[in-house]
Amino acid sequence: MIEFGSETLVITHDAMAEGTHWRPGTDPYDIAWKLVATNLSDLAAKGAEPVGVLLSHVLGDGDDRFLEGLCTVLARHDTPILGGDTIAAAPGARTLGLTAIGRATCAKVPSRAGARAGDRVLVTGTLGRAMLGFDGDEGHREAFLRPAPRLAEGRALAPVVSAMMDISDGLLLDAFRLAQASEATIAIESDAVPVADPDRREDSLRWGDDYELLFTLPEDAACPVEASAIGRVEPAGFAPLMLDGHPLLNAAGLGFAHG
Amino acid sequence: MIEFGSETLVITHDAMAEGTHWRPGTDPYDIAWKLVATNLSDLAAKGAEPVGVLLSHVLGDGDDRFLEGLCTVLARHDTPILGGDTIAAAPGARTLGLTAIGRATCAKVPSRAGARAGDRVLVTGTLGRAMLGFDGDEGHREAFLRPAPRLAEGRALAPVVSAMMDISDGLLLDAFRLAQASEATIAIESDAVPVADPDRREDSLRWGDDYELLFTLPEDAACPVEASAIGRVEPAGFAPLMLDGHPLLNAAGLGFAHG
Repeated sequence: MIEFGSETLVITHDAMAEGTHWRPGTDPYDIAWKLVATNLSDLAAKGAEPVGVLLSHVLGDGDDRFLEGLCTVLARHDTPILGGDTIAAAPGARTLGLTAIGRATCAKVPSRAGARAGDRVLVTGTLGRAMLGFDGDEGHREAFLRPAPRLAEGRALAPVVSAMMDISDGLLLDAFRLAQASEATIAIESDAVPVADPDRREDSLRWGDDYELLFTLPEDAACPVEASAIGRVEPAGFAPLMLDGHPLLNAAGLGFAHG
Repeated sequence: MIEFGSETLVITHDAMAEGTHWRPGTDPYDIAWKLVATNLSDLAAKGAEPVGVLLSHVLGDGDDRFLEGLCTVLARHDTPILGGDTIAAAPGARTLGLTAIGRATCAKVPSRAGARAGDRVLVTGTLGRAMLGFDGDEGHREAFLRPAPRLAEGRALAPVVSAMMDISDGLLLDAFRLAQASEATIAIESDAVPVADPDRREDSLRWGDDYELLFTLPEDAACPVEASAIGRVEPAGFAPLMLDGHPLLNAAGLGFAHG
């Protein structure tokens, strides 16, 4: 975040590598989609409106298809390509990067730090959809391949939340991080978390790629978007995260952290 | 360039790949240096003051040394790292990217388009220094490995130039591009170009990596920095570029264009 003139600029950069972030053989259309979605989701969590993106692209097979996906997802979010760089590299694992520039729409730009004891913990949408799509469920294929960043919700929430982040690495891992950044404990009731398949509730709390927003609200604040209350912020205690009353002491095993 | 609040934001992104932009075995300190210098040089050409950078980094051998170079060159230009992404990738040619954010210090941000017939053509510094350094001349080693972007000169020039760019791919190729963007012809006198080694004048006009500024000035404008007058802008003619009276019709062979 940078104060810029009379406004606040939010800039994010996410990189992706073949083998680490996508499997060889993935449709380049979908790679482009996810590259844009992950970056715009970071803007959403800051309540920022996208201004444009810069692409860092290593030339390779399927570039036409990549460009098609890129233009489609950017058009959907009314976001122009402002520039970037295209380079040739020796054959090998390709890497791609995207810088997204956003304009904060709220004087107070939310961060992960800021949750206070007594705040409610909420989440948008339904978790586990990307997981089901990844596992071959046709009805959730779109959720996995072409996630929709919660830009409108992020802008509506920014003025009222005490802390906010997007769930890219799984609810539990990201809640753990939010709790640590806020120097508080977050207590989550797993039954209160909306999941696409209740038989896979546990997995759904750990799977990433849903790009929903996790946020905390002061007790008396009304929530301006559709979301589910899933827990409470408590004073910093024994563990950063409590799940159904059980302390979770460290982040290992809570979700998946990309390389 | 983006209007942002009451200011203008300038954003550049340059990527580099092993094998294409640096040889295997290059000191990672110098790779970091060049990555920063090329991006800050793009800001210099816009008369922008660096606000910060975002790094896109694929983990690998020599990261400590890379970080050392990165911090040193950024400190020299008083530029903070604002964020970025660090990823793991399968072994292979590594790619690195940097996004630089700048604040335009002048209401009129210079571009390559804008040169008008009658303008003078000027260049900062002495060309061919990076070439000599590359070829093993110890006295010019620094010029090749650790170029200094012309940030102060860019800021001083921005209010008065009609067009400006940095010379990253060689004077002739970049002048050709400036002429095309301005829909004009640029006539250069090779003897007027300051070169480090007069015996290699021809090579010096074609070699890149000097990161000097090439700019055009209206006839009556005083030049606020030390620079050499090397030619004139003429009405768009037979060729975009004239060298010592000879037309150069296409960009092929004029310099080196990175992949």
